[in-house]
Amino acid sequence: MRIGFIGLGNMGAAMAANLLKAGHEVTAYNRSPAKVAALAAEGARPATSVAEACQGDVVVSMLANDDAVEAVTFGGHGIVAALSEGAVHVSSSTISTALAERLTGAHAEAGQSFVAAPVFGRPEAAAAAKLFVVAAGAPATVAAVTPVFEAIGQRTFVLGEDPSAANLVKISGNFLIASVIESLGEAMALVGKAGVDKQQYLELLTSTLFDAPVYRTYGGLLAREEFSPTGFAATLGLKDVKLALSAGEELRVPLPVASLLRDRFLTLLATGGGELDWSAMGALTAWEAGGKAPA
Amino acid sequence: MRIGFIGLGNMGAAMAANLLKAGHEVTAYNRSPAKVAALAAEGARPATSVAEACQGDVVVSMLANDDAVEAVTFGGHGIVAALSEGAVHVSSSTISTALAERLTGAHAEAGQSFVAAPVFGRPEAAAAAKLFVVAAGAPATVAAVTPVFEAIGQRTFVLGEDPSAANLVKISGNFLIASVIESLGEAMALVGKAGVDKQQYLELLTSTLFDAPVYRTYGGLLAREEFSPTGFAATLGLKDVKLALSAGEELRVPLPVASLLRDRFLTLLATGGGELDWSAMGALTAWEAGGKAPA
Amino acid sequence: MRIGFIGLGNMGAAMAANLLKAGHEVTAYNRSPAKVAALAAEGARPATSVAEACQGDVVVSMLANDDAVEAVTFGGHGIVAALSEGAVHVSSSTISTALAERLTGAHAEAGQSFVAAPVFGRPEAAAAAKLFVVAAGAPATVAAVTPVFEAIGQRTFVLGEDPSAANLVKISGNFLIASVIESLGEAMALVGKAGVDKQQYLELLTSTLFDAPVYRTYGGLLAREEFSPTGFAATLGLKDVKLALSAGEELRVPLPVASLLRDRFLTLLATGGGELDWSAMGALTAWEAGGKAPA
Amino acid sequence: MRIGFIGLGNMGAAMAANLLKAGHEVTAYNRSPAKVAALAAEGARPATSVAEACQGDVVVSMLANDDAVEAVTFGGHGIVAALSEGAVHVSSSTISTALAERLTGAHAEAGQSFVAAPVFGRPEAAAAAKLFVVAAGAPATVAAVTPVFEAIGQRTFVLGEDPSAANLVKISGNFLIASVIESLGEAMALVGKAGVDKQQYLELLTSTLFDAPVYRTYGGLLAREEFSPTGFAATLGLKDVKLALSAGEELRVPLPVASLLRDRFLTLLATGGGELDWSAMGALTAWEAGGKAPA
Repeated sequence: MRIGFIGLGNMGAAMAANLLKAGHEVTAYNRSPAKVAALAAEGARPATSVAEACQGDVVVSMLANDDAVEAVTFGGHGIVAALSEGAVHVSSSTISTALAERLTGAHAEAGQSFVAAPVFGRPEAAAAAKLFVVAAGAPATVAAVTPVFEAIGQRTFVLGEDPSAANLVKISGNFLIASVIESLGEAMALVGKAGVDKQQYLELLTSTLFDAPVYRTYGGLLAREEFSPTGFAATLGLKDVKLALSAGEELRVPLPVASLLRDRFLTLLATGGGELDWSAMGALTAWEAGGKAPA
Repeated sequence: MRIGFIGLGNMGAAMAANLLKAGHEVTAYNRSPAKVAALAAEGARPATSVAEACQGDVVVSMLANDDAVEAVTFGGHGIVAALSEGAVHVSSSTISTALAERLTGAHAEAGQSFVAAPVFGRPEAAAAAKLFVVAAGAPATVAAVTPVFEAIGQRTFVLGEDPSAANLVKISGNFLIASVIESLGEAMALVGKAGVDKQQYLELLTSTLFDAPVYRTYGGLLAREEFSPTGFAATLGLKDVKLALSAGEELRVPLPVASLLRDRFLTLLATGGGELDWSAMGALTAWEAGGKAPA
Repeated sequence: MRIGFIGLGNMGAAMAANLLKAGHEVTAYNRSPAKVAALAAEGARPATSVAEACQGDVVVSMLANDDAVEAVTFGGHGIVAALSEGAVHVSSSTISTALAERLTGAHAEAGQSFVAAPVFGRPEAAAAAKLFVVAAGAPATVAAVTPVFEAIGQRTFVLGEDPSAANLVKISGNFLIASVIESLGEAMALVGKAGVDKQQYLELLTSTLFDAPVYRTYGGLLAREEFSPTGFAATLGLKDVKLALSAGEELRVPLPVASLLRDRFLTLLATGGGELDWSAMGALTAWEAGGKAPA
Repeated sequence: MRIGFIGLGNMGAAMAANLLKAGHEVTAYNRSPAKVAALAAEGARPATSVAEACQGDVVVSMLANDDAVEAVTFGGHGIVAALSEGAVHVSSSTISTALAERLTGAHAEAGQSFVAAPVFGRPEAAAAAKLFVVAAGAPATVAAVTPVFEAIGQRTFVLGEDPSAANLVKISGNFLIASVIESLGEAMALVGKAGVDKQQYLELLTSTLFDAPVYRTYGGLLAREEFSPTGFAATLGLKDVKLALSAGEELRVPLPVASLLRDRFLTLLATGGGELDWSAMGALTAWEAGGKAPA
């Protein structure tokens, strides 16, 4: 397929590279051009504007937050203006359900299609084409862009016709990961202060009821207190918890654990840890218990 | 081995039955004698007092809480008074670290040994001899009673010489399970109110980062709103969260998620759900979001 | 003075009436015209547009939230477009610090002045001209509009040159009131369930350390479980707590009590209490403790 | 009256001195004898044992916690054993409702009377005989010991026949004070980080809705960051919050603000602030927001 790709951060660059490996023709755009050049070396066509990346059948955007997605989508030089009638915008960014609804409407009005396809997985998984894709949109359109999902992920979950549902599921998933970081952080602060070895403790957990990637990955980072290099920054963790809280406000669902996580991330940012991996949030309990600060 | 067994509740009865199946000679005691009769039908010798169950090499106790363990251990008719010098008390109950320390001291003074061996697993796992055993105590003693662990569980983790560390790990593990129930309950209330199917949501979670028994078991109960029959009662969940909070107070470790769980369990008990499965706690968010109460 | 007044809700209508009583010439505008007619009967000149209310030296706006203030301020028919050079916009609404900053800039650009002057007090206090005014802006401008404050309030606190500081103080004050409602609600649920008379309990508190209007007012409503008529709706309480949380996010200050209040208000709204007085939030603990729901 | 007084800490010494000033005959006991000598210089008879202080009509105890009260009350040399039939034990300590119930029973069995009379007020108020006394017990007994209350306080609130109700009210009052410390601490961290002067902010609050001693006292300590000398130690604050949580557990009342306070005090203790005034707890938010730690 002829695919435009907008946003070559840690995640996006790896996803675009896998689209190339799968044989697709990829035209790539990024605000800072150095990332474009790097991907061009792997075979991508460099684009110097958003519009240039919108000449194919589908354009994939993978950006940091609502503001960045709005900036490339709306306005005279944005995706909606540049995309052909009948083409598809696949949004893999973690954005608010409110923005997903706005994008759905804007593309429909322009005779285009919108598919929300946020992904689960850290940069390593993106590089290995092992992401999990959560897709929602009109069934025929989702089917049409399935080759994109197959190139970047190990499995695709199709949720239904409403794109914002995919974003809500993604947001809730990141909330669940953050809640694991916090709970594990509390448990490790507790057993650690009593002298139990944290690695042995983690092995016990992940050999039994907690035998899941989320515990192995984040438990390992916590046990080793290894908060850089940053797979996913604390600032992004805060952003995603705020998305969960906003969705809860719209739907009128109180989320006490998410509220706690919001305050935890704010503390981490205020004390200098905003660019650490978000797992550093789990080290705050040990700090409050008299240990050292994560940042 | 000649093994006494004290406490034939859901868990204890299954564990004692597996000791019988493994060929051990089991003398069983329970406060209400009907449970003793049931086990006698499977080959156990019935005991009509704690002391009668303390005639062998080892006595295993599996009781509901600190009070119950204290009641059978201390005093003129208790385990300490009845057990021979050199014999071993294996405590599988989920008790406070403070009581574990007291038991360690009392048995040592009486020339006996004490091993803490709390277990992870619900009644189904106990029946299938698939428990995970977390054992701590003097290495030679732990080695001596390993046949007990092999008969009841699928794997034993040996933590070190301090029995109370095993209890702390068990307490922290139950805290982690309860935190999963709460977080999943919040996430399901959120996506459920937006119309996402909870079973499909759970399948997505457990196919990806959250591929662990704890998510499958408790997520399934939550998705089906199936809070009885009771595998582990909400009253016991509250007890265990309080044990975590107490351990945190002794060690001076704040535990904000555990504090939230305490209040959640109190709400569940106050509104009539004390005898429901503790997973019902996870349904409180949906109730607060305008849905129906779990009890 | 020649004063325009925009927004004749419970609070605004009473404030405008007091400006009339103090001898000012008041031109009043409200989206629904019935309120305008009522005030015209007390001597106000009715305006049928925002612009018509902007012909004097100063225009006061008293509206429900950021959206309402933005709607009357910006655009071709808004306050900024209609106000003369040199005239003053006094904003008494409880709005975000972000919007206060935007208003400051827009009026400065148009050669006008902006003063933030949020008020403390319920509708009874507004009717009695007993509000407390928290004002911030350029000193000369604040001095010039002091007759407005004298007509509506019992005391004015002047904070400094930055209007948004007044809004932050107002937001934090409403947060403190809500925290009193919650804490008192918990305390009353506790002593009430033990059989202590809640009115006697309140008398004890307000005769001693807690001898303040906030305890007498909200404690009385809680003790009598009197959540309507509504002095200040729960929906507005949620709005203000969210303003506090947003300010905390910008400044990177975690606010755990505010986070709890957010979830409490969401629960109240989700269970049908959005139009009750915000004191109803304090009745949620008694509900969770097995009593009846506030709504 | 002939009054025994047990416990000459900051509070007790001042109370006993006021009993002397009011003309009572006071026999004083304290575990460390230096405090007894100091009071003897003001006219008290020194006692070298609890029993010696129990020879009069009434004995007042004012001690730090449940353990200390149990230690002087029970056993062969305790108050119950030493007090004459018909004499009265007035307990002014802040103790659990459970211990109050046990004391009521033990004194009744010994033909003695028990009155719970916890007090509100810091050491300055105790020195000035300006405490507030909350008394509960048999009406005739309460009436008989009223001269004690008149000598130490400015007002007495009589709650009813059940002594433990007075303790519950006291516990809930300390919880409310701690909740003010926390809420004010959050509000001051917020406005302070935006550059608002904290003393001016406090003056605004205490001139309006928050015109109460609790805001003036604790707000002043927070605004000046003056956490020593210690009027009431953080360790005692934690003790009292735990008493509130325990009472909530018995009565099945969730107390989310109290749970938060528990974790806050634990953090303060774990980071070295246990002997600071409990108002230091309110400085934790500013610390988490990137400021300096209170200890």
